[in-house]
Amino acid sequence: MTSSKQVRGLWVPALTPFGTDLAPDPGRFIAHCQWLLANGANGLAVFGTTSEANSMSKEERKTLLEAVIEAGVDPARLMPGTGCCALPDTVELTKHAVEHGCAGVLLLPPFYYKGVSDDGLFAAIAETIERVGDPRLRVYLYHIPPMAAVGFGLTLIERLLKAYPETIVGLKDSSGEWSNTSAILSDFPELATFPGSEAFLLPGLRAGSAGCISASANVNPIAIRRLCDTWEDDDADAQQEQLSAIRRVIQSQPVIPGLKTIIAKARNDATWTTVRPPLTPLKTDAASQLHVMLTERDFDWPQLGG
Amino acid sequence: MTSSKQVRGLWVPALTPFGTDLAPDPGRFIAHCQWLLANGANGLAVFGTTSEANSMSKEERKTLLEAVIEAGVDPARLMPGTGCCALPDTVELTKHAVEHGCAGVLLLPPFYYKGVSDDGLFAAIAETIERVGDPRLRVYLYHIPPMAAVGFGLTLIERLLKAYPETIVGLKDSSGEWSNTSAILSDFPELATFPGSEAFLLPGLRAGSAGCISASANVNPIAIRRLCDTWEDDDADAQQEQLSAIRRVIQSQPVIPGLKTIIAKARNDATWTTVRPPLTPLKTDAASQLHVMLTERDFDWPQLGG
Repeated sequence: MTSSKQVRGLWVPALTPFGTDLAPDPGRFIAHCQWLLANGANGLAVFGTTSEANSMSKEERKTLLEAVIEAGVDPARLMPGTGCCALPDTVELTKHAVEHGCAGVLLLPPFYYKGVSDDGLFAAIAETIERVGDPRLRVYLYHIPPMAAVGFGLTLIERLLKAYPETIVGLKDSSGEWSNTSAILSDFPELATFPGSEAFLLPGLRAGSAGCISASANVNPIAIRRLCDTWEDDDADAQQEQLSAIRRVIQSQPVIPGLKTIIAKARNDATWTTVRPPLTPLKTDAASQLHVMLTERDFDWPQLGG
Repeated sequence: MTSSKQVRGLWVPALTPFGTDLAPDPGRFIAHCQWLLANGANGLAVFGTTSEANSMSKEERKTLLEAVIEAGVDPARLMPGTGCCALPDTVELTKHAVEHGCAGVLLLPPFYYKGVSDDGLFAAIAETIERVGDPRLRVYLYHIPPMAAVGFGLTLIERLLKAYPETIVGLKDSSGEWSNTSAILSDFPELATFPGSEAFLLPGLRAGSAGCISASANVNPIAIRRLCDTWEDDDADAQQEQLSAIRRVIQSQPVIPGLKTIIAKARNDATWTTVRPPLTPLKTDAASQLHVMLTERDFDWPQLGG
């Protein structure tokens, strides 16, 4: 794995396209990954929440990762999600990512049991790191309490950093709470910290964040990347305002099916609307509403080749 | 799979023993399963929450299931948990259980995404049933909102029953809310409904439940089974009171490590205290407290051969 210094800017949690038979679609996935990298993404946090990764088997995740690397995507620009409920699954996927030269892994805590102790979560991460046993491993902790319920509080982060200072190099904060992101940035300046939404991009960068890892970057990467690169310019606040306005439109509907609908529309490819259960596609009127609202805001539709 | 009429009484969510290297231990697992069946269990709901099933890979679950069947346990007395986050995993484990002649499967809904719709949960269960595509399949819905967060509400149960009346034959209610169990018993008398705790055993049986599937039955199966068989006797309320008193002691500590501690003590086998992260073993003083409180209540320690 590569130095964490390279992991900065806009990392996109790439959507996973499925066929109408619900099987992952390597062709559309590769095309989407390549499009993102050509249109602003510094890297791809594949197999996150937005990617419906937990709705895929580990075999499907490994196959897709191999496919995208074989298609020519530099693994130094990939940070797959590898955290599962079961330790052997997490170890297997993490080893696979390291062996394929990925920049790092984005690690969910085991998320079935609720109300578990920091001791238990520490043990889960420590066992993963020890069992992978590879000095190339770089871990980005994935804090997303709205889905996982359990997460990485400040005390736990401190303890993990003390035990594995070379391995734990970053964190994605999808708590949606700026006060939490701000505390992490202030307490752990050595971490590459990514807010989980571009709504916090400018305040994050001003407070020392590494950039952002945001679902909506699947459809709006150029504008988000521009602010990553020009956040010290005079128009930064105006850029942030425009990004947040688009984000609010996207969040007005269930985000994952909404993003897939936007891509289906932009690429004239209805198959892209497919999601795996328990998610459901947007209903027709919700999809129309999303299209109207985005068009009203001069949204730059994510056409392939664009 | 066998007729749902046989699935009644006490079904125990058997604990999974791990070695100190955290690997599942088929020898201790087989011995514990056989002990439970010889000491009151009508059947075993292996690979549930109490079994730390979601902390195991699907390969580990399949291997353990095959081991216990090869050791002579009748698959008609087994109801493995097979519900995972990812549809292909759920299908694979469910097919495996059906092909091995299990009485049924206890099916968690996909539990990573929160706030999903009934349409999405219906699709997840429907796809599972269709893809397994085996008329022998019998599904017991596993409703456990404290862990899964999502679950099976009355409207969803009704819809599933209407679509798959031959397949969906039962439900385990681990909501811990008697009002919910009571509503299910009243609305769906055709289902074999199991409260997830023996604290509701007598009220459940009086309202038409099938019995119970309870964690604490791992250590107290004889007494729980006795009430299943004699609930119409004069001493039923007294029996219930005693069961509930033991249950309260068990619930005074984290339940899964507590149960493993009780078995380790009864069998003089410290390896039994091992849990997989994110769970943690009981601390020494908590374990001592549990032992003292159980001994004060004339608890029948679950010794092997007992």
